[in-house]
Amino acid sequence: MTSPVGLHRVVEPAGVLPQAAWRVDNRPEIGPNEVRIRVERLNLDAASYRQLREKHAGDGDAVRAEVLAIVDERGKMHNPVTGSGGMLIGVVEAVGPRSPLGLTPGDRVATLVSLTLTPLRITDGLKSWDGGGEQVPAEGHAILFARSIVAKLPDDLPAELALAVLDVCGAPALTRRVVQAGDTVAVLGGAGKSGSLALAAARRAGARRTVGIVPTEAEATRLRDAGIADAVEIADARDPVRLAEAVTRALGKPADVTVVCVDVPGCEHGAILATDDGGTVIFFSMATSFAAAALGAEGLAADVTMLVGNGYVPGHAEFALELLRSEPAVRHLFEQRVRAD
Amino acid sequence: MTSPVGLHRVVEPAGVLPQAAWRVDNRPEIGPNEVRIRVERLNLDAASYRQLREKHAGDGDAVRAEVLAIVDERGKMHNPVTGSGGMLIGVVEAVGPRSPLGLTPGDRVATLVSLTLTPLRITDGLKSWDGGGEQVPAEGHAILFARSIVAKLPDDLPAELALAVLDVCGAPALTRRVVQAGDTVAVLGGAGKSGSLALAAARRAGARRTVGIVPTEAEATRLRDAGIADAVEIADARDPVRLAEAVTRALGKPADVTVVCVDVPGCEHGAILATDDGGTVIFFSMATSFAAAALGAEGLAADVTMLVGNGYVPGHAEFALELLRSEPAVRHLFEQRVRAD
Repeated sequence: MTSPVGLHRVVEPAGVLPQAAWRVDNRPEIGPNEVRIRVERLNLDAASYRQLREKHAGDGDAVRAEVLAIVDERGKMHNPVTGSGGMLIGVVEAVGPRSPLGLTPGDRVATLVSLTLTPLRITDGLKSWDGGGEQVPAEGHAILFARSIVAKLPDDLPAELALAVLDVCGAPALTRRVVQAGDTVAVLGGAGKSGSLALAAARRAGARRTVGIVPTEAEATRLRDAGIADAVEIADARDPVRLAEAVTRALGKPADVTVVCVDVPGCEHGAILATDDGGTVIFFSMATSFAAAALGAEGLAADVTMLVGNGYVPGHAEFALELLRSEPAVRHLFEQRVRAD
Repeated sequence: MTSPVGLHRVVEPAGVLPQAAWRVDNRPEIGPNEVRIRVERLNLDAASYRQLREKHAGDGDAVRAEVLAIVDERGKMHNPVTGSGGMLIGVVEAVGPRSPLGLTPGDRVATLVSLTLTPLRITDGLKSWDGGGEQVPAEGHAILFARSIVAKLPDDLPAELALAVLDVCGAPALTRRVVQAGDTVAVLGGAGKSGSLALAAARRAGARRTVGIVPTEAEATRLRDAGIADAVEIADARDPVRLAEAVTRALGKPADVTVVCVDVPGCEHGAILATDDGGTVIFFSMATSFAAAALGAEGLAADVTMLVGNGYVPGHAEFALELLRSEPAVRHLFEQRVRAD
C-alpha cells in the first residue's frame, strides 16, 4: 500500500515528508490510493512569484525558465528561496481504486495542498505563459495522495475566481475560529485576497470593530468603497510605530486580534506592537520570520499569542466560497484582483 | 518622555525598533523611564558564539576583537551573521524616576530581553576574557527601557544556575498556559533545559500523561531517572514517521499538546504528525521554519493550532525558578547541564 501522506514519492533526503523533500518522484503511474490530475493552470504563491520577479528584475522569460528549472529539478514547484509553492487546477485523469478523495475522472478540481508537496511534471515548456503573473497556464500532470485536500470547482463561479478564493481559504476559516464576539480586529493587507476574506470572516464572527490596513491611497479607496471594514487606515506594515498608531487610532486601543495578510518580510514587530496585551496575532504571510516574531514579542514584553497560520481548517473551502457568494463587496474586490493579476 | 520600547535610542535605520536597528545609541545618560546597569558578565547566545569561534578557527584573541568591534559599531552585542545576541548580568547603577521595572540601585539582575536590542558599551576591552567560551566577564554599562524584562537574581541559587533557568523561562510558562487538565503532552527534547521545565510545567498544569522524547539512550536514562515524565521514548525528532509512532506508543494516541524544545532544524513535520486533530503544537526552537510549519500542517490536512513560542509570559521567571526549587529532579538535570556547558 502506498503511503497516505506520500512518503513513497520522496526521493531525497530519505525519510522526510514530501514537503520537506528536496526532490519527489513525479512519475505519472499512480498507486492504488493516488489520483492523477491533468494540469490546466498553476497559481504561484504570491511571495514565491514576487521573489522570482524581483530576482530577475521583471524579465518574464527568465522567470519562466526558473520555474521550469525548479520543477524539473525538484519534481514539484517548491521555490527554494521562499519555501513556498501555490496550488493548481486541472481535471482528474485517473483515480486509484483505493483513493478516499471521492473523485471521478473528468472532475475539475483545485488542489488545496501546497505545490511544495505535490508531485508535478510540466510538458509544454509553459509556452502559454509570459512569466508576468502568478497565474500560470500549464500542461502536464500532478499527483494527489490519500490525505491530500482537493476541492471540486463550483459550477456557479468562474474558475479563476474560485481558484483565487480557494488559494487563501485558510485565512477566513482560522480568523472565524479565533475572533470572539466583541473583539476588535486589525487586518494588515485588508484589501488583498486573504485580507478581504479575513475582514468579512471577522465581522461574521461578531467582531465589534474592524480596521483594514493598506499601503496606498488607491487601495484605501477600494477598501472603503467595499465597506467590509469599519475603518480603513494607510500605513506601511513594516513600520511598527506608524502601524501601531494607525490601528490604535482606528480601534481606540491596540487590536484584540491582528491578522497579517501582507506578503512582504518585516511585518512581525508591527503586528505585535499593534496587538493588545492578551491578544492574538495570526500570521498568514509566508514571508513571516519565526525568529523575528518570537524575539520581537519577547523584546517588547508583549503578552500576545502568536499563531502560525495553518492553511487547513476543516470546512475552509466551503466557508470561503460562501463568503464570496454572500458578500458582493468581497466578490467585487476579488474580481478586481483577479483581473489585475 | 522617552519611548517605552527604546525608539529614541535607534540611530539607524530610522523608524525601526531597537532589535531591528543596525545601530543604537549606547550613551550612559538615562531617560526618565530608563535604567542603567553596571555590566558584570555577558552570556553570548550559543549560535552567535559558535559562529564567531568557527570564523576565527578558535583564535580567542580574534573572537574577542570581533565582539568588541560589533559592540563598538552597533552599540549592542548583535551578531550580524546569526542575528542573535544573548543576555547579561550586572548590578543596577541608576534608575530613572519613571521606570516601571521596580528596581533599586544595587540590585543584582539578569536581563531577559535579548542583547540584540540592549544598548551596551564595554569599557575594559574584555581583558578578563580569553575568547574561549560563551560566558564573557565584562565591564561597562547597559540600558534597559520601560518595557524591558529583567529578573532580580535570587539569593538562594548559584548565579549560573539561575541564569540557565531564566534563559528558557518562557517555555514552562507558556506550556502551563496551554495545557489543560487531562491533556496528554509530548515534549521533544525532554531532557534539555527548556524541555525538562516544560515537562514539569505540563504535570503542574494537570496533564494526564506526558512523554519526553530524547535522541539518545544516555539522555533517556537521565530523563527516566529524573522521573519527571510518565514515559520516555528515543526518537529522532526530524523523522516524522518514527516520532509520531513513538509518541502514539507512549500516549495511546497522538498528543493533545506537543512542545518542541529541540534546537535543530526540521522538526516541524514530526511535531505536527505527532499531534492529535484539534491539538496544539508549541514551537520553542529558534530553528523553526515558519513556512515548513504552515505548509506542513496544510499538506498533512492536520487541524492543529500552532503557536510561536513567545519568550515572554507574565510571571515566567518566577514560575521557572519556583519549578527548579520545588522539583529536585529538574534542579539535578539543570545542574548536570550547566556543568557540561
